[in-house]
Amino acid sequence: MAQLSDKRLNQLKESIPKIVGLRIKELRNERGLTQTELAELVGKDRQYLYKIEKGRVTPNVVTISALVYALEISLTDFFDFKI
Amino acid sequence: MAQLSDKRLNQLKESIPKIVGLRIKELRNERGLTQTELAELVGKDRQYLYKIEKGRVTPNVVTISALVYALEISLTDFFDFKI
Repeated sequence: MAQLSDKRLNQLKESIPKIVGLRIKELRNERGLTQTELAELVGKDRQYLYKIEKGRVTPNVVTISALVYALEISLTDFFDFKI
Repeated sequence: MAQLSDKRLNQLKESIPKIVGLRIKELRNERGLTQTELAELVGKDRQYLYKIEKGRVTPNVVTISALVYALEISLTDFFDFKI
């Protein structure tokens, strides 16, 4: 197991929030939900969801689990992307 | 899509960090790594990894991605559990 270089860690810091945000936005649109509707389903406000979708904040695993649960998809399907 | 009740949200807040922590510990042990060794691979300190494994902190998606990357497993395989 190799140590992750600072460059790799920074790459993850940059890319992961954006990929996760786009996934949530894509799934939300597929289900015809507005940001306000999805945010309300998980007890968050629209602005916070907007920042998540833009990759401007790094959501924790509980917030993602709630969103994924509300979007009716499994975590393993949600995270089916390469890092 | 149903709104998540406060009870369900609290359930996720309780269970997800614990499940994620146990998954990381299980994978770390499978690979014969100490907490210190895994923590160093991702530029974190042992105490922080200890808290993650105990479910006492809720890691964000970048921290999990780094750990999962260091443990050489895909995110989709890591998150292959029911919520």
